[in-house]
Amino acid sequence: MDLHGVNPILPTPFTDGGELDIASLERLIDFQLAAGVDGVAILGFLGEAHKLAEAERRTVIETVVARAGGAIPVWVGVRALGTAGAIEQARAAQALGATAVFVAPIAPQNDQALYEHFRAVARAVDVPLIVHDYPASFGITLAPELVARLANDGYAPYIKLEDPPVLSKLSRIRELTDGKIGVFGGLGGEYFLEELQRGALGIMTGFAFPEVLVAIYRQFTGGDEAGAARTFDQYMPLIRYEFQPKIGLAFRKHIYQRRGVFDSAHIRPPGMALDEVSREELENLIARVGLRLEPTVHEIR
Amino acid sequence: MDLHGVNPILPTPFTDGGELDIASLERLIDFQLAAGVDGVAILGFLGEAHKLAEAERRTVIETVVARAGGAIPVWVGVRALGTAGAIEQARAAQALGATAVFVAPIAPQNDQALYEHFRAVARAVDVPLIVHDYPASFGITLAPELVARLANDGYAPYIKLEDPPVLSKLSRIRELTDGKIGVFGGLGGEYFLEELQRGALGIMTGFAFPEVLVAIYRQFTGGDEAGAARTFDQYMPLIRYEFQPKIGLAFRKHIYQRRGVFDSAHIRPPGMALDEVSREELENLIARVGLRLEPTVHEIR
Amino acid sequence: MDLHGVNPILPTPFTDGGELDIASLERLIDFQLAAGVDGVAILGFLGEAHKLAEAERRTVIETVVARAGGAIPVWVGVRALGTAGAIEQARAAQALGATAVFVAPIAPQNDQALYEHFRAVARAVDVPLIVHDYPASFGITLAPELVARLANDGYAPYIKLEDPPVLSKLSRIRELTDGKIGVFGGLGGEYFLEELQRGALGIMTGFAFPEVLVAIYRQFTGGDEAGAARTFDQYMPLIRYEFQPKIGLAFRKHIYQRRGVFDSAHIRPPGMALDEVSREELENLIARVGLRLEPTVHEIR
Amino acid sequence: MDLHGVNPILPTPFTDGGELDIASLERLIDFQLAAGVDGVAILGFLGEAHKLAEAERRTVIETVVARAGGAIPVWVGVRALGTAGAIEQARAAQALGATAVFVAPIAPQNDQALYEHFRAVARAVDVPLIVHDYPASFGITLAPELVARLANDGYAPYIKLEDPPVLSKLSRIRELTDGKIGVFGGLGGEYFLEELQRGALGIMTGFAFPEVLVAIYRQFTGGDEAGAARTFDQYMPLIRYEFQPKIGLAFRKHIYQRRGVFDSAHIRPPGMALDEVSREELENLIARVGLRLEPTVHEIR
Repeated sequence: MDLHGVNPILPTPFTDGGELDIASLERLIDFQLAAGVDGVAILGFLGEAHKLAEAERRTVIETVVARAGGAIPVWVGVRALGTAGAIEQARAAQALGATAVFVAPIAPQNDQALYEHFRAVARAVDVPLIVHDYPASFGITLAPELVARLANDGYAPYIKLEDPPVLSKLSRIRELTDGKIGVFGGLGGEYFLEELQRGALGIMTGFAFPEVLVAIYRQFTGGDEAGAARTFDQYMPLIRYEFQPKIGLAFRKHIYQRRGVFDSAHIRPPGMALDEVSREELENLIARVGLRLEPTVHEIR
Repeated sequence: MDLHGVNPILPTPFTDGGELDIASLERLIDFQLAAGVDGVAILGFLGEAHKLAEAERRTVIETVVARAGGAIPVWVGVRALGTAGAIEQARAAQALGATAVFVAPIAPQNDQALYEHFRAVARAVDVPLIVHDYPASFGITLAPELVARLANDGYAPYIKLEDPPVLSKLSRIRELTDGKIGVFGGLGGEYFLEELQRGALGIMTGFAFPEVLVAIYRQFTGGDEAGAARTFDQYMPLIRYEFQPKIGLAFRKHIYQRRGVFDSAHIRPPGMALDEVSREELENLIARVGLRLEPTVHEIR
Repeated sequence: MDLHGVNPILPTPFTDGGELDIASLERLIDFQLAAGVDGVAILGFLGEAHKLAEAERRTVIETVVARAGGAIPVWVGVRALGTAGAIEQARAAQALGATAVFVAPIAPQNDQALYEHFRAVARAVDVPLIVHDYPASFGITLAPELVARLANDGYAPYIKLEDPPVLSKLSRIRELTDGKIGVFGGLGGEYFLEELQRGALGIMTGFAFPEVLVAIYRQFTGGDEAGAARTFDQYMPLIRYEFQPKIGLAFRKHIYQRRGVFDSAHIRPPGMALDEVSREELENLIARVGLRLEPTVHEIR
Repeated sequence: MDLHGVNPILPTPFTDGGELDIASLERLIDFQLAAGVDGVAILGFLGEAHKLAEAERRTVIETVVARAGGAIPVWVGVRALGTAGAIEQARAAQALGATAVFVAPIAPQNDQALYEHFRAVARAVDVPLIVHDYPASFGITLAPELVARLANDGYAPYIKLEDPPVLSKLSRIRELTDGKIGVFGGLGGEYFLEELQRGALGIMTGFAFPEVLVAIYRQFTGGDEAGAARTFDQYMPLIRYEFQPKIGLAFRKHIYQRRGVFDSAHIRPPGMALDEVSREELENLIARVGLRLEPTVHEIR
C-alpha cells in the first residue's frame, strides 16, 4: 500500500483506571475511517507507547490492524534503547500486519551509529521504514546529510520530519535526495500547508479533528491551493492551541472523549492533566473556529 | 513609568558589513512610536545582545533612550555568565537611562542559586527587574515556586514568560503570588489572546508588525474581546510562521528591511540566513493575511 | 539473601559475530565465584542491556542464575522507557530467579513522577529494589530528598550511587534516612575506600580485577583500614585508567579476554573499540601495578 | 615565550566577604614561581572568571602580569556568550600583557560556527590562541576534525584537551595535524603521565600541589620515565580525590589557605562549600600520600 496523505497518529485510550480500552480504540479506528484519512499511525510518542508493556503494544497492533481491515495502511511506531530491541519490535509489528514502521533514533548523538541503527532495522523487515526525526522528544538531531544517505542507500524511503524550522530542512533533504525520499510533516499540523507546497507527501500528526487535515489535503491535491490555504488559516488558531507542548495529549484525549470516541481521557503518568481553565479555553476556541464537540465528522468546505 | 501593553523586543540592525547601524536603529524607534507601542525592549536574545561587544551594547542603549525621549519605557536586557557580570550590566543600563531591566538566569539549574542571582541583581539597581523565563534559549527552567518566592519577596515585580505550555504556568504563578507579579507574554505572540484573558499585563515579543499586537491589546483592554479574538485569529497564520525557531530573526529583519526601517537584514554569526524559498513564502503569507511590506504603519481594525 | 560487599556488574560476552556467548558467560560466573565476590549484577548499562533483545536478556538471566546456583545474590538491571515496561522486566527477572532488581529512572526530570515510577516497580515485585542513580548515563538527577523519601517509605532499601561528587551525596542521603538505606558505590571503584569509610554497604562496579575490590572490602571490614587504604592506593592508577568514559567497556572486555574468561572482546554498536596504543598502555599499566593478565585469580595481600 | 610544561590554572582568591583579594593573588604567583612552574593560567572556569565583573578581571590580569614580571608566561582565559565579547576580552588581555589566551567555544553546537568563532578571535590578537575543549563545563563538543582544521589553518597552535576519553582524542588530533598542534592536558592531572607519553607539551590544570606535577614533568622530559610513573602513581590517590566535580574548587582553595597562600577559601555563589567530613577526608589523604599542608614547596623526588 502506498503511503501518502493524512495519517493521524493515534492516542492510546485507557479506562479511568489506566487499563487499555479496546472498545474505545476500535471506535477511534471507525472514526478515522469515517473522517476519510489515508492511514493511521499507532504506538508513537503521542500514543504513549513508552508507557505500555510489550503485551499491551501487541494488543494495540492487533486491534487496529483487525479493525482497519486492510482499508488503509497502519503505521506502527518502533522505539527502543538499542538496535536489537528496535528490530524485535519492528519484526513483531510486521508479523502482526503493520504496513510500515516509523522508527526513533537511539542515543548517543553520532551520525555513523545512527546510520547503522536505521539500516539494521530496515534490513530486518520487509515493510518500509519511516525515519522519525523528532529532537524535542528523542533528544537526537538527524543531520540532513545523514537522512539523505539513508534514503539514497535505500534504507529510508520515508521520513516524518519534526525538527524545526522544519520547512528549510524539508527542502534541504529533498534537494539532497533528488526528491527520492517521501516526507511527512508533523508538529500538530502547524506547517501543513507549506509542507505540501514544498513537496511533502502528506502528514502524520495527532490533531483531533482529522477531517480538517483531510480537507486541506484534498483541496491542495485537487488543485485548489487557495481553498486549502483558506481552510488552513481558518483552523490555525485551534491547530496552534492544541499543539502546545506537554499538555497537547490532554487536549486531544479530551476532544476524543467529548466527540464520543473515548470513554475516558485518562493519561498514564508521567503526563500533564487538563485543568478547568484550559478545558474551557479549549472548548471556547473550538466553537470560535466553527467546530463542534460531537461524534459526527464535520463537513469541511 | 508603568509597564504594560505591547513592548516589542527589537532586533539590532547592522550594516551589510556587520557594523552597528545607528540610523536604522533610530528609524526603528520612530517606527515603534508610530505603531503606538507601550514600550520597547532592547538587547535581548532576539537583539543578538550576546553577539555584541560591551561598547556596542552601550551605544544601543544610548541611542534608544535618546530617541525614545522619555515617551515610552525602555527595557534593557541583562545576560551574563554570572551574577557580578549581570550586576555590572544592570547598573550600566540604569545609568544610561533604562526604565527596567529584564534579566536572564545563570547556570546551573539550582533553585536557591537562581533565587540569589535574581535577588542580587534586583538589589543592585533601583529600576524594576523583569525575570526572563525562556528555557529554549537559556537552558534553565524556573519553577513557578521560585518565581513566586522572588515576586513575594519583592525582587521580581514582573516576569516575561516563555516556558511552554505557557498558559498553565501563567495561571499557576499568578495563583502563587495572588496576582502580585506582572506577567508579560512572549513566544512571538502565539498565545497573546489567552495570556490577556488569563490576566497578563501585556506582551514583550518581536513580531515585526507591532501594530497588530497593539490593535489586539487596545481591543481587549477596551472591552471588545470578540474584536480582539478576530484580529488575533486573522493574523495567526503569520504570527505562527514568523515565530519559527532559528529562522525567526531572519524573517523579522527582512520585514523591517522591506518596510523601509532597516538598511540591511544582516545577522551576525552564528545565525540562520533567509533562503529564497522562505523569503517568497513569507511574503506571500504577509499578503494573504492582508498586510503590506510598506513603511507606513497599518491601520488594523 | 543479604546484599553487601563486592558485586561486580558484568559485561555481556558476545562472539566475534555479535551473538550472545553463553559459554563465556558461564566462565565469567565461575571466575567471579573464584574471586570471592559477594554477588553479581547483570544487565546494567555496562552489560549492554540496552543493546539486547528481550529474549537475549532472558537467556542471560537464566544462565547466570543457574550457574551461580544460589551461592551468591544475582542482581538484575531494569531499564525501560516507562513504568509499565520496567514492571514487565522486573517481574520477568523475579520469575527467573533474580535476588534483587536495580532500576533506572525514566524521563522527564520530575521528582514526583520519579517517586511514582520507583514506587510502582517496588510494589510490583517481592525482591528488593536498588535505585540506580547514574546521571551520566541516564540523563536524570535524583535529589537526595527524593531518594530519602523512597527509602523512608519502604520502596528503596538500597541505592547504587554514581552521581559525583558521590561522597557528599552518600553522607547526605544517609543523614536523611538515619542510615536506613543501604548504599553501594560504583564509578569504577574510584571512591571505594571513602565510600566504605562513610558507611557504604559495598560496591557494584565493573573493575575487571574483582579480587582487588574483594581484598579492599575484606581488609576494611576485618578492621584493617590501613591495609585497605594501601591496597586501594596501589591499584588506584589502574582503577582510574580503566574507568575512562566510553572506552571503559572495551578495556574490561579486553581484560576478561586476556584473562581467559571471554572468547571475544566484541562490543555491540554503538560502542568505542580499543585501539592499539590504548591496548598497550592498558597492559603496561596492569603490569606496573603488579597484576598479570592470566586466568588465575590473584592473591592480593 | 614558548608554551610548555606545567601551567597551573589558578583559583581566584576572595576575602571572606567575597571581594577580590590582591595580596593573596600575589602570594599565589610567588608560590607558583617557587614551585618551578612553566607558566600560569588565570581567569578560567576554575578561576571563577564567569563570576567576576569586567573590572575585576582586569585587576586580576594586571596583578598577575606584574607579579610574574615576565619570568613565566601568563595565559588568560576568554569566555563570552558570543564572538564580539570574546574578541573584546582577548584584546584587553593582550593589552594588559597576556602571553596567550585560552578561549572557550560558544553555543550552539555547530562545527562551522565554532570554526569561525575561534578564527575570528585568533585574527583579532597577536598572542597565540589555545582552544579550550571542555564539554563538561561548556556544553559544547569540539570534533577532532574541527580542531585539526583550526590548527592546520594556523588559528589554533595549542589546545587544552579535557574531553574524555582524552587520550584517544589527543592521539587522533595529533594524527590529523601531523603533530602541528601543541596539546596540553587538564582534568586535574588524572592522565598527565599518559598525555606526556602520547606527545603532550604539558599540562594546564588546578592541582594544588603544583610541585608534584613539576616533578613528573621534569622526570619525564629528563628521560626518567619510570621515575615519572612512580611519582605519578604515588600521588594518584590525591589527584583523583581532589578532582571531584563541583567540590574540587573548594578542595583547592582550602589547600591554598592551609598552605598559607590564601587568606580565605571563600567561593562566590553558585558553588559547593567544603563540609567537615570532606575536609578531614582530604587532609588525611594528603598526609597519606606524604604531603604536608605547609607554606613551603615540597621537594618531590
